[in-house]
Amino acid sequence: MFQPTSSILKKHGVTRPTLIVFEDRARRNIRRMLAKSTSAGVTLRPHFKTHQSVEVAAWFAAEGVDRITVSSLTMAEKFSAASWLDITLAFLLNPLQLPKISRLAANLAARGGSLGITIDSPEAAAALATIAAPHPEVWLKIDTGYHRTGIPWNDTKLLNEVVRNLPQPPTGILTHAGHSYHTSGAKALKELWVETLQNMQAARTALRQSDLLISVGDTPTCSTVNDVSGVDEIRPGNFVYYDLMQLQIGSCLAEHLAAAVACPVVGLYPERGQVVIHGGAIHLSKEPLEENGALIFGKPGLLEPGRIVAEAAVTELSQEHGTITFKEGAFPAPGTLAIGDLLLIWPVHSCLAADLLECRPSPSSRILP
Amino acid sequence: MFQPTSSILKKHGVTRPTLIVFEDRARRNIRRMLAKSTSAGVTLRPHFKTHQSVEVAAWFAAEGVDRITVSSLTMAEKFSAASWLDITLAFLLNPLQLPKISRLAANLAARGGSLGITIDSPEAAAALATIAAPHPEVWLKIDTGYHRTGIPWNDTKLLNEVVRNLPQPPTGILTHAGHSYHTSGAKALKELWVETLQNMQAARTALRQSDLLISVGDTPTCSTVNDVSGVDEIRPGNFVYYDLMQLQIGSCLAEHLAAAVACPVVGLYPERGQVVIHGGAIHLSKEPLEENGALIFGKPGLLEPGRIVAEAAVTELSQEHGTITFKEGAFPAPGTLAIGDLLLIWPVHSCLAADLLECRPSPSSRILP
Repeated sequence: MFQPTSSILKKHGVTRPTLIVFEDRARRNIRRMLAKSTSAGVTLRPHFKTHQSVEVAAWFAAEGVDRITVSSLTMAEKFSAASWLDITLAFLLNPLQLPKISRLAANLAARGGSLGITIDSPEAAAALATIAAPHPEVWLKIDTGYHRTGIPWNDTKLLNEVVRNLPQPPTGILTHAGHSYHTSGAKALKELWVETLQNMQAARTALRQSDLLISVGDTPTCSTVNDVSGVDEIRPGNFVYYDLMQLQIGSCLAEHLAAAVACPVVGLYPERGQVVIHGGAIHLSKEPLEENGALIFGKPGLLEPGRIVAEAAVTELSQEHGTITFKEGAFPAPGTLAIGDLLLIWPVHSCLAADLLECRPSPSSRILP
Repeated sequence: MFQPTSSILKKHGVTRPTLIVFEDRARRNIRRMLAKSTSAGVTLRPHFKTHQSVEVAAWFAAEGVDRITVSSLTMAEKFSAASWLDITLAFLLNPLQLPKISRLAANLAARGGSLGITIDSPEAAAALATIAAPHPEVWLKIDTGYHRTGIPWNDTKLLNEVVRNLPQPPTGILTHAGHSYHTSGAKALKELWVETLQNMQAARTALRQSDLLISVGDTPTCSTVNDVSGVDEIRPGNFVYYDLMQLQIGSCLAEHLAAAVACPVVGLYPERGQVVIHGGAIHLSKEPLEENGALIFGKPGLLEPGRIVAEAAVTELSQEHGTITFKEGAFPAPGTLAIGDLLLIWPVHSCLAADLLECRPSPSSRILP
């Protein structure tokens, strides 16, 4: 039977769209990924763009994680200020930020840490050479098939040209096999993992520098491949929370979902099987997921691990409004759902929902056990 | 010829994804809408959810606008703090926020202003009756065909039931004909405007209270209908900036576009006709627009009014990355576009881009003439 999850959320003072992080599940997700990397002798350098939270970061630190990945200079500065010392900025160098990058690299180096950046062109390599030492560590960004950024893994000429333009030897080669997000099932993801590794090893061979580290990382492959050996580090991020997209890909089970958005019910329309919540594009993001041939933006859920309300979905989002549509005959019975109740919505993409709700002047989030 | 818009943006210190607001165009958009409402004897109560900026709000004040619309209590509190006294919170009452709503209503009343809220159910009306006076003014939310929220305009029984539960007579009836966003062309929008008015007048008749004010408002109809008489107030919001969606609907011309996102170029891939920018889902939002059968998330532009680069579009967005794809043969000639250049991207939905960039701990925006 459908039941709103109001009482415990109200006890936590929730009155507006709020990110709810389930600590036990998130910590278990962290420990599971760490156990996998440790047993393979691989460093886990988690991507903190997913949570962007200093508090969640501390759960990683508690497990011994001390190297991290971020996707913007803003994030790098934030986690540097929060005492993280070994940070890879896994986003292509933006030359306009060189002065700030230089300062951050010097700051981290002075504290015994280091900043890593990524580069995929001779121009960016040459731009880096214009700033004073200590230079950030350089990772060559490799395109192993995703075709977003990176030097094509088999472009020997370009690989070596970029290295020649650098002020120092690179630390390693780095890729993000983001096409795993368009793959599903353990078998296909395993094939993608193997292909990524082969391409990365080929790129290293083309550079004739066998000591270059290999860094890979995306939640779908890192979650589904049992043995992640063969690389030096993995950089998944989304696994700390997972979400409906990862569930559909097959990266997680419903009981691993560790972040949802609590949304107040503001309108009930039983005649059309719909409920309207305060929870819109600026809370859940307009990242869509295909379900039964239609696009959805989230699913209502209950607090127990793994409980997703199968017979309903968020089918429309405007700036502040979300519309939940129930399947025919599934609308909650009179008296079970009221205006002012709080519903938990599992987001399609937890990284975006977390960014929307954590990175505000008054962050709207709560941690539950 | 394709030219990045770097120099002027660099002069303004832009180094990361930044909302660029063109003041002259925005002020012209404000004056045009105000002239239309004034000549029809209708109040303009602009929706401030589009810009959420105290600075842009001042441009409205300079034209004599003193009544506004917002879509969340957070926004209402922000503009109250910025000396706006007559505020309609055009979002259904969330009973969990009643204590704060009550405080804000009292605060505004004490300063000679007033808070308006919207209600569409007997339950919400009854909840409102539980708080102490001064009560906020109540607008009955009417569904004139959009089917998101509101009392169906022809549901006489429900209309009167809601009114009976209120602690005081309502101020007026209010609707948002959001289905105008799925309409295009002046003729169809005019028909929608007329139908909306007829339905609102029928709802008022059903309530047998001829002194109820009528408030309507959406940018497509308010922009395209020449004569907005027949209502008491209009509440468009998006018109201050407009965007690609409004351009496609026919609400504006390209020269009216007044907000864009400046994005640093970080990767050039001429072999596949693509440029990668720092500018992703957390800057532009994943609001899509159909162009030639494909979904796009923005278009590159130039600083001159009306200049949209027709032969390119933002075709992919991840959290921080945007991919611009050029039509075959249209990729900028060597030397015209470099890593570290800044590109102006016209967003699909300026309200979401503005929310993403203005509502951060360190807002990322600049005002240009």
